[in-house]
Amino acid sequence: MRYLTAGESHGPQLTAIIEGLPSQMNLTTEVVNHELKRRQGGHGRGRRMQIEKDTVDITSGVRHGKTLGSPVALVVNNDDWKHWTKVMGIEPLSEDINPEDIKRQISRPRPGHADLVGGMKYGHRDLRNVLERSSARETTVRVAVGAVAKQFLKELGINVVAHVVEIGGVKADSEKYAGKSVGSIREIVEEDPVYCLDPEASKQMVAAIDEAKEKGDSIGGVVEVIIEGCPPGIGSYVHYDRKLDGKLARAMLSINAFKGVEFGLGFEMARKFGSEVHDEIMYDEENGYSRRTNRLGGLEGGMTTGMPIVVRGVMKPIPTLYKPLQSVDIETKEPFKASIERSDSCAVPAASVVAEHVIAWEIATAIAEQFHSDQMPQLKEEIEAYRRYVKGY
Amino acid sequence: MRYLTAGESHGPQLTAIIEGLPSQMNLTTEVVNHELKRRQGGHGRGRRMQIEKDTVDITSGVRHGKTLGSPVALVVNNDDWKHWTKVMGIEPLSEDINPEDIKRQISRPRPGHADLVGGMKYGHRDLRNVLERSSARETTVRVAVGAVAKQFLKELGINVVAHVVEIGGVKADSEKYAGKSVGSIREIVEEDPVYCLDPEASKQMVAAIDEAKEKGDSIGGVVEVIIEGCPPGIGSYVHYDRKLDGKLARAMLSINAFKGVEFGLGFEMARKFGSEVHDEIMYDEENGYSRRTNRLGGLEGGMTTGMPIVVRGVMKPIPTLYKPLQSVDIETKEPFKASIERSDSCAVPAASVVAEHVIAWEIATAIAEQFHSDQMPQLKEEIEAYRRYVKGY
Amino acid sequence: MRYLTAGESHGPQLTAIIEGLPSQMNLTTEVVNHELKRRQGGHGRGRRMQIEKDTVDITSGVRHGKTLGSPVALVVNNDDWKHWTKVMGIEPLSEDINPEDIKRQISRPRPGHADLVGGMKYGHRDLRNVLERSSARETTVRVAVGAVAKQFLKELGINVVAHVVEIGGVKADSEKYAGKSVGSIREIVEEDPVYCLDPEASKQMVAAIDEAKEKGDSIGGVVEVIIEGCPPGIGSYVHYDRKLDGKLARAMLSINAFKGVEFGLGFEMARKFGSEVHDEIMYDEENGYSRRTNRLGGLEGGMTTGMPIVVRGVMKPIPTLYKPLQSVDIETKEPFKASIERSDSCAVPAASVVAEHVIAWEIATAIAEQFHSDQMPQLKEEIEAYRRYVKGY
Amino acid sequence: MRYLTAGESHGPQLTAIIEGLPSQMNLTTEVVNHELKRRQGGHGRGRRMQIEKDTVDITSGVRHGKTLGSPVALVVNNDDWKHWTKVMGIEPLSEDINPEDIKRQISRPRPGHADLVGGMKYGHRDLRNVLERSSARETTVRVAVGAVAKQFLKELGINVVAHVVEIGGVKADSEKYAGKSVGSIREIVEEDPVYCLDPEASKQMVAAIDEAKEKGDSIGGVVEVIIEGCPPGIGSYVHYDRKLDGKLARAMLSINAFKGVEFGLGFEMARKFGSEVHDEIMYDEENGYSRRTNRLGGLEGGMTTGMPIVVRGVMKPIPTLYKPLQSVDIETKEPFKASIERSDSCAVPAASVVAEHVIAWEIATAIAEQFHSDQMPQLKEEIEAYRRYVKGY
Repeated sequence: MRYLTAGESHGPQLTAIIEGLPSQMNLTTEVVNHELKRRQGGHGRGRRMQIEKDTVDITSGVRHGKTLGSPVALVVNNDDWKHWTKVMGIEPLSEDINPEDIKRQISRPRPGHADLVGGMKYGHRDLRNVLERSSARETTVRVAVGAVAKQFLKELGINVVAHVVEIGGVKADSEKYAGKSVGSIREIVEEDPVYCLDPEASKQMVAAIDEAKEKGDSIGGVVEVIIEGCPPGIGSYVHYDRKLDGKLARAMLSINAFKGVEFGLGFEMARKFGSEVHDEIMYDEENGYSRRTNRLGGLEGGMTTGMPIVVRGVMKPIPTLYKPLQSVDIETKEPFKASIERSDSCAVPAASVVAEHVIAWEIATAIAEQFHSDQMPQLKEEIEAYRRYVKGY
Repeated sequence: MRYLTAGESHGPQLTAIIEGLPSQMNLTTEVVNHELKRRQGGHGRGRRMQIEKDTVDITSGVRHGKTLGSPVALVVNNDDWKHWTKVMGIEPLSEDINPEDIKRQISRPRPGHADLVGGMKYGHRDLRNVLERSSARETTVRVAVGAVAKQFLKELGINVVAHVVEIGGVKADSEKYAGKSVGSIREIVEEDPVYCLDPEASKQMVAAIDEAKEKGDSIGGVVEVIIEGCPPGIGSYVHYDRKLDGKLARAMLSINAFKGVEFGLGFEMARKFGSEVHDEIMYDEENGYSRRTNRLGGLEGGMTTGMPIVVRGVMKPIPTLYKPLQSVDIETKEPFKASIERSDSCAVPAASVVAEHVIAWEIATAIAEQFHSDQMPQLKEEIEAYRRYVKGY
Repeated sequence: MRYLTAGESHGPQLTAIIEGLPSQMNLTTEVVNHELKRRQGGHGRGRRMQIEKDTVDITSGVRHGKTLGSPVALVVNNDDWKHWTKVMGIEPLSEDINPEDIKRQISRPRPGHADLVGGMKYGHRDLRNVLERSSARETTVRVAVGAVAKQFLKELGINVVAHVVEIGGVKADSEKYAGKSVGSIREIVEEDPVYCLDPEASKQMVAAIDEAKEKGDSIGGVVEVIIEGCPPGIGSYVHYDRKLDGKLARAMLSINAFKGVEFGLGFEMARKFGSEVHDEIMYDEENGYSRRTNRLGGLEGGMTTGMPIVVRGVMKPIPTLYKPLQSVDIETKEPFKASIERSDSCAVPAASVVAEHVIAWEIATAIAEQFHSDQMPQLKEEIEAYRRYVKGY
Repeated sequence: MRYLTAGESHGPQLTAIIEGLPSQMNLTTEVVNHELKRRQGGHGRGRRMQIEKDTVDITSGVRHGKTLGSPVALVVNNDDWKHWTKVMGIEPLSEDINPEDIKRQISRPRPGHADLVGGMKYGHRDLRNVLERSSARETTVRVAVGAVAKQFLKELGINVVAHVVEIGGVKADSEKYAGKSVGSIREIVEEDPVYCLDPEASKQMVAAIDEAKEKGDSIGGVVEVIIEGCPPGIGSYVHYDRKLDGKLARAMLSINAFKGVEFGLGFEMARKFGSEVHDEIMYDEENGYSRRTNRLGGLEGGMTTGMPIVVRGVMKPIPTLYKPLQSVDIETKEPFKASIERSDSCAVPAASVVAEHVIAWEIATAIAEQFHSDQMPQLKEEIEAYRRYVKGY
């Protein structure tokens, strides 16, 4: 399974094509739209989230609610496009138009964005040509793709959820949600303003966001994704580039503004003894092999262990600040203070939704590659047979 | 550029094939051997490191000290192979041999290793068939591959070094080495018993390792890789899977026992304001664009900024402990206490060398993909021209 | 550069996403539409070609007539979709609808199509689920993609054209067009009813098509693609999967109904002496190296030689015949005679347009991979410098 | 499954690494050596084939005759290496050595070889740096890789064979071997001096080769590969780059000196009516679906049909001729007549062995990708279950 995305932030639409899905998998726009809505929520979002209510169109690969096995195209229209047809028009400007009148040209790169380096790389003098694509707007359609992957996983009894574990230095108390199932985590998270499991921490996070906003500043945080029900042995130790944790890490770092990833105890492992970080192996006839703990986050030797996969990513504070940063105009080479029109002060809750979906995609892809995945019903049977085999190993 | 590796821990040899190197690049075994030796050093290594002195043979792709443009094969012989020809023999056992006499068969999976899940996945009842490949022994040949990549980078004026920043809870004082060049870091690190820049911390790390060893336990740590001289614009924001940080993260997580990765301030960004994490942009005619700080670790929008790339990885404590962990025999299903014959108590210094090399490979590959890289002299010129272009942007 | 396509024959639209194009390349819908029209022409096409006039929408990656470096999405709407919204609807059928009333279900696989095997593979009982995607309709959007590739090549001074060299046993006289430039071939071909250079053969081809049509039968043929202006050294001999001819062969065989490919003298080489098939090397100061002949079709050792690339593909007669073929109903297992509603009797002229475009894509991709291709103006300069270097080699 | 190869013609060894093989597959050097010997046979080979008897060493991934699931490294030593240690030495020449004394430097490119273009591409002035890798010597290790693939296929009941159908204009009479099984073809072919099924044609081919040799010329030919027992549905119509025929075509064109490929009736389809080229579908309860004919060569819609796959490739006459061709010295720019030291006059029989193996690899890979292929016994069961499913479809 593979996918490509296309689309500028103020262009007509975002598009994705997913190739390699099994046939006969259930798929409706409703399932995708639910996730697009979650991505637009969360305390701390700016005005744009209110303007646009994203919904998806499926334009191929699905018939009467079932996948065909052929590529699935997803389209999310930009409602705002009607105001941008000139600025972002596809066709060449007619000669009687002064480009200056039209382009809302940008020559001032914002620190922390792709603006300056992107401009250099692609030779753009109008940095709008960079930021239209580097914008986190693109994650919308990646959530749509991930929603399809989650449907794939769900049919195999694998469930995924993300929640926020830290914002602006406020940490959720992990004791409070130890051992909760993905389903019950989802229920709590979907009701919480910052998608956090710990109601006390949630209140403080909201306060931290409001405080940052007031200061014209922004804050980041940490999100955690949990995958439950994944059979053991997905990924492989036999070659460096087949390790599943490597693929998950790459996916997490592919989210705009993410700067780190960790599994299980993660960086805490640098402060612990070996006897404190590994997961002892148990066996009973009814359940087969299991682990007393899950400190390694469900991955050993680059493979799933059968325990929940637990992966966290850190998101930096959004760089678009009311509090200006020093930069340089690429035309005049004069310094200026980067200022902005509008922005979110904290996008961590929304980013947790993105993380959930990009991780879901990686797990789904890894399973599709490993098993015979032309048809969903055959795949379901195969996974069931594999689970029985593993239990009896 | 791409490479494959092969080889079991007690098989005859480790092999790698690198495809896609430019022609006319300097390459000798000496350059590779120097790095293999570093990988075998570091306080806290077990006995095997003393037994085997790894050296490389180049068996193709190089002639009279210059690459040909054709694939380069690297071979590291296992000196110990002569004692393992029966246990690890390639050909079928002759019928008059009792496999039990020969195989040193293993039915007891060690927690924290690939043993159990690997056995399930590949259907092995003798877990030696797993651990021979999942062993960190394989990183030897990845260091050899990375040494070739470092040579590639060096010819382009790009230098890479790794050092240890934390072991068993002891952290190096980062103030002490702020602003040091890769060259001077390397000089210090190559003399330090734990490849650490901070001599005070180094002493405490050594003590921590000795203490762990005494307890029959093990400790992990954090390593940092720094790349200096990389031009801006390597990687791309235009598609999620072209972001360089994603590729680096994947490479870091492909190292045995690594469980997390972060760039620049990393997870600390969850505790800071936006105004504290971004790198303001400056310009002067002599140097072109630069940054006041490097909190983002040399990456913005999935691309290099021209500042040093700073990436850290966390390694869990080695799971092979004298202090036994609970596990289950896969034949009898009886519980047992996993015990071991010999081991390192801390492999973080060695792992820093591995990290340096896998990261170097990713940077080299990204550059080779982006530029015309059939011939090293042409590539050098192209990179120089690009650097001038960027300065004048 | 890479692309994915999506879309069913009677679905709402065909979609393609192209990732990896340089920035600042000229691109308009007009350029693409011209090629879509050519694909719909040619003597021997059935009724559908008259119904739908394909045009493309560009929905991302282009601004004011220039590429941005970000992915380009192409959409070709199916005009006929309004009549198929029920049969091919995306959402699940509401429960009060009898699927039988709606689906135009197909249980009778046509020999020579993907119907039977596709149904087996993806578990479809309604073979419409196969044929909607396996239809040559999909080549429409591949022509659109190839039109973008041709624009890429044109800016580098590389030109591509296809023409028909054989239909139903009638062969064009190759002497008549020996040495013609791509530009003059294009002029002739665009005016010819079967896209053939030889006016005598063209008349006979038209007659052969008409005869086949009358018989309720179909005929195939051979198309030739010529690429002019490609610098030497694209592709590589160093690894089996980097040979350019292999990539071109794959592309040709990816066209629906194509069953063979050959370069230069092709299969005739089995009947010639070595002294008759190789291209002697000449040199003069003004032009550098050249060849006396071009029997190898512009490729040596998996690389371009600088001579025109000449590649031919054979297309089988269209399997949808009025003259029925024996088959089996997958529900009743009863034999039946496969009959059809409407069809082309010869699609070779149209297929020549498809061949031109898929081959153009491969050449463009090979160049983009080999050279620094972030920005078209930089790439142009680099190719020019490379041409000078080669001349002076 | 994937593999890389390395090695120069007069270097110490050829190496290949295969990654992705299932565990628990039988593998011995004997199986590979048998094929290496066949590759060295055939009437018309030059002296080198007598000098070197190629044998393989397996240096990883196999234990006691069974694959481990980890990468398999294959090594074929060049017996002649001892005479080339100076000319082809890896390490830089010491300063007191005059390179001219050592290098057997070549500045005269041979038409029809990679020499000239390869020299340009990689900037070599000594064309030995090209020809050492572009030599067909490399196909030795690709045969070794293919022998492993054939073992994979054999365990799944899939058999592959190649035979020569044309040499220097002499064609085998295809009527004579219609309907022969792969096993019986192999028996005949292994005894024939030109690996041809038709004894009459074989005699004429031998004569043609001898005649060419006498003239100092060379001849080419056509080889055919047949794969029997492959289940239907391998490959896919859903995306252009998943079509199996495209992959097979690419593999065939990756063989040195191959210039064309065709499936089933191939180019003859340009001369036939549709009613003559398609394969009618039949059904009976005992065998499930079958075809009356196999004109399409076992492939429909980019997928296997379950009928034997029949693919042919054309090989040009070897360009290394005693009868010289005009060329240009790259140093002096003077014309010269390319002459040679030794050569084969016809390598078509040997090339048929190479074709058999590269095609086997593609089929094996396609199956491994499509099915759950971690363990050979599981894979066998899965293929059996799939065969039953297809029969009952």
